[in-house]
Amino acid sequence: MTEIKVAVLGAAGRMGTQTCAAVEAADGMTLVARLDKDDPITGGSLSGADVVVDFTVPSAAEKNVHAVLDAGAHAVVGTTGWDDASRGRVAEHLERLNATRAHGLGVLIAPNFGLSAVLAMSFAAKAARWFESVEVIELHHPDKVDAPSGTARHTAVAVAAARAEAGLPASPDATESGWEARGADIDGVRVHAVRLRGLVAHEEILLGNPGEQLVIRQDSFDRSSFMPGVLVAVRAVVDRPGLTVGLEHVLDLA
Amino acid sequence: MTEIKVAVLGAAGRMGTQTCAAVEAADGMTLVARLDKDDPITGGSLSGADVVVDFTVPSAAEKNVHAVLDAGAHAVVGTTGWDDASRGRVAEHLERLNATRAHGLGVLIAPNFGLSAVLAMSFAAKAARWFESVEVIELHHPDKVDAPSGTARHTAVAVAAARAEAGLPASPDATESGWEARGADIDGVRVHAVRLRGLVAHEEILLGNPGEQLVIRQDSFDRSSFMPGVLVAVRAVVDRPGLTVGLEHVLDLA
Amino acid sequence: MTEIKVAVLGAAGRMGTQTCAAVEAADGMTLVARLDKDDPITGGSLSGADVVVDFTVPSAAEKNVHAVLDAGAHAVVGTTGWDDASRGRVAEHLERLNATRAHGLGVLIAPNFGLSAVLAMSFAAKAARWFESVEVIELHHPDKVDAPSGTARHTAVAVAAARAEAGLPASPDATESGWEARGADIDGVRVHAVRLRGLVAHEEILLGNPGEQLVIRQDSFDRSSFMPGVLVAVRAVVDRPGLTVGLEHVLDLA
Amino acid sequence: MTEIKVAVLGAAGRMGTQTCAAVEAADGMTLVARLDKDDPITGGSLSGADVVVDFTVPSAAEKNVHAVLDAGAHAVVGTTGWDDASRGRVAEHLERLNATRAHGLGVLIAPNFGLSAVLAMSFAAKAARWFESVEVIELHHPDKVDAPSGTARHTAVAVAAARAEAGLPASPDATESGWEARGADIDGVRVHAVRLRGLVAHEEILLGNPGEQLVIRQDSFDRSSFMPGVLVAVRAVVDRPGLTVGLEHVLDLA
Repeated sequence: MTEIKVAVLGAAGRMGTQTCAAVEAADGMTLVARLDKDDPITGGSLSGADVVVDFTVPSAAEKNVHAVLDAGAHAVVGTTGWDDASRGRVAEHLERLNATRAHGLGVLIAPNFGLSAVLAMSFAAKAARWFESVEVIELHHPDKVDAPSGTARHTAVAVAAARAEAGLPASPDATESGWEARGADIDGVRVHAVRLRGLVAHEEILLGNPGEQLVIRQDSFDRSSFMPGVLVAVRAVVDRPGLTVGLEHVLDLA
Repeated sequence: MTEIKVAVLGAAGRMGTQTCAAVEAADGMTLVARLDKDDPITGGSLSGADVVVDFTVPSAAEKNVHAVLDAGAHAVVGTTGWDDASRGRVAEHLERLNATRAHGLGVLIAPNFGLSAVLAMSFAAKAARWFESVEVIELHHPDKVDAPSGTARHTAVAVAAARAEAGLPASPDATESGWEARGADIDGVRVHAVRLRGLVAHEEILLGNPGEQLVIRQDSFDRSSFMPGVLVAVRAVVDRPGLTVGLEHVLDLA
Repeated sequence: MTEIKVAVLGAAGRMGTQTCAAVEAADGMTLVARLDKDDPITGGSLSGADVVVDFTVPSAAEKNVHAVLDAGAHAVVGTTGWDDASRGRVAEHLERLNATRAHGLGVLIAPNFGLSAVLAMSFAAKAARWFESVEVIELHHPDKVDAPSGTARHTAVAVAAARAEAGLPASPDATESGWEARGADIDGVRVHAVRLRGLVAHEEILLGNPGEQLVIRQDSFDRSSFMPGVLVAVRAVVDRPGLTVGLEHVLDLA
Repeated sequence: MTEIKVAVLGAAGRMGTQTCAAVEAADGMTLVARLDKDDPITGGSLSGADVVVDFTVPSAAEKNVHAVLDAGAHAVVGTTGWDDASRGRVAEHLERLNATRAHGLGVLIAPNFGLSAVLAMSFAAKAARWFESVEVIELHHPDKVDAPSGTARHTAVAVAAARAEAGLPASPDATESGWEARGADIDGVRVHAVRLRGLVAHEEILLGNPGEQLVIRQDSFDRSSFMPGVLVAVRAVVDRPGLTVGLEHVLDLA
């Protein structure tokens, strides 16, 4: 197997720095370029990279992906904050390019590279239709401003969609009063938000039937937890032409 | 050691029936009388019981305790719903009687006989002053009408009091929005209430400092879980003259 | 949708009794026959059942399935203790019959009808290849004679197979001494067995990477927890000609 | 309240460095001296410290404490590996000194400064006599060489002692085979040891009765978790003449 040549955009940032280190330590890949915010993105500056990982800022990421594709490389995008219009323009650009080439380029946009978080969300959605009740608890450090967390919101949306598709009614609930805790009702799924010094980012999905419970819990203890997912994405994107949104699609969960 | 002779009031009720069975199966005690709602409470009907356990209804319990004391027996009260006035009258009655006797009678009122629940609450209060953050999660079956549960409210009140006594500020919390989940703020302690088919009654107290967490969790899987606590109370009350409120006081936790 | 007509073999047994009650309470099915150990199994005694559920004993189950198929009904088998030879003979019998009919019959053999247990095992196997470490903890009541439990053994075998297929080495482990706890090494996966009064049957699979953890936990609080799985099996078998072993194949987990 | 003046021995080491930073950031104390391995310990070098914290090496710690006491300061010892002979000599030295002074000096030796770990152990011991079953699970990173951990051993010893004192028999256990997992039997208490990448140091004590469970769990996510305990020790030792072994004695748990 030949080595995958990797370039990193936003290489001096917090995630970019970790990505460079992770790529250098990984089997089967070589770091060929580190670019930061004022560096031009061209075939030359990318040093022949097969895959370019973008950890920049929302305002730059779409433009960066177009430049990466024009340079003939695959893109992995970890920068968050993409809207649907951006996705659409990247998808069109990609299709146009792939129509003119022998074998296609891929773009993998991942809002979350945490393997445990992505798997927890995916398993919760798959399990959802088989249980009468479901609730979500997310737990974070107390400096977090928003509640519930984005991950918990996505989980609840996916769980609610799976229940709706299976024709399940709302989770049973006889509560007559007391709705003042941190958290929200997301599409009918109750999400509780705990804030506690010492914690980082954690999520628990509780599913219940008469006499049984399934709990899927995910703990992110530090930022290093995203690197295994970034490496999975780099390895996957070279064999996955077109646009993929979400790491779960490359984790062979079928 | 001589056997403790036990009578049960409300012997045909759900808790009373279990109490009779538990007393009969226990070492060191004998069931000498089962009384139900229209039975008179006298020295005769109590068959010389040393200890009388009351699992009747709030409207009858105070009167029952007076009758038990007049018959010269100790009382263990599991009936919930006592108000402070009732407690006061029982305490006075007890003092008056004990002043006229060689050795004193005892009354033990326990709002909760679950050993794990009582211990969890007590440990949480003891630990509270040593942690920057604390939150409570209670989890119950979805047919429960009130939220948060009484046990969780008591826990939060005890935890808040311990923090206040130690001069601790509120748990840190940067949350700017999102207060619509099941639960409440009890004296500044956030209490989350989860409702899930399959669960019975569970409580978790989470305490956090930088880099560490202490979690005290308690599970009540069924009503049989109260019987060990009832037996502890019966054994303790004979050596504990006067009024005691709360099983935690007889569990040697010092 | 027409109602599914269901017959139960071993209807007087512990699981059979619950199955009859669950079928009677379920939407979309009717209980048409309850048979016990000396009852003949024929088209007549089965009262035109579409699906026959077998909760008998290992020595009778294979013969029962042949009779059910000869009567033209689908079979769901919850009786445990099938060996591979029995499976083979049922599969052959089924093929022969299906070759002679317009639309095929199905047999669904499920060693475990607990939805949470089946899902936990399936998710653990899917997740296994993405984590550096994995260990299993099973927790049961202290009257259980074997350790680790059958469910935990199956889980460990499935997890080990998934890791092997992905080319993962053994989970890292620097332990130099201390191997005397309840549990076992199953194909290189460490399985811990906890025995505790008050518990019923529980399993936890812990998967770890640098900085992150995924925990899949499953609780069976009582035998009623198997009934949702039995009903899923009854509904699925009518559309699933041939032999299926394991409830996970009908849970749409792809 | 006057400020407590604090000196640190082993100030350049991993724990010493953190202690210096924690003291400097704390209310009510001032760091007056940082000493390292070749620095002499005298009234002069300690700069009038009220309390001296020792985080050196086992071979030096006893001698250091004698020097600290001779200089008229209280000592907090975090260096592990003290044997009983060392303790005895320090206790004698202390008694002799205190007999000749107006108000006594204190030495507080703490094998563990993690508040959550110390509290978990203490609560487990207090709860032990009230439950039929108890088992311990400790979970650590996979580079740990010994199993079970020292903390889990101490917990099991304390739990076993509390059960013995209350006259409890062994936890019930019908297991007939399968004793090959990581862990040990410590004085009759089963201790399970889990090793998983991503974890740091965690302990769970499970206590069970019919129908109920109490779980006390403690997580140490990083070394910073010891600092609150060190500060508690510094504040406590000035009011606690004589020798104290174990942080639990200053946590007001009665």
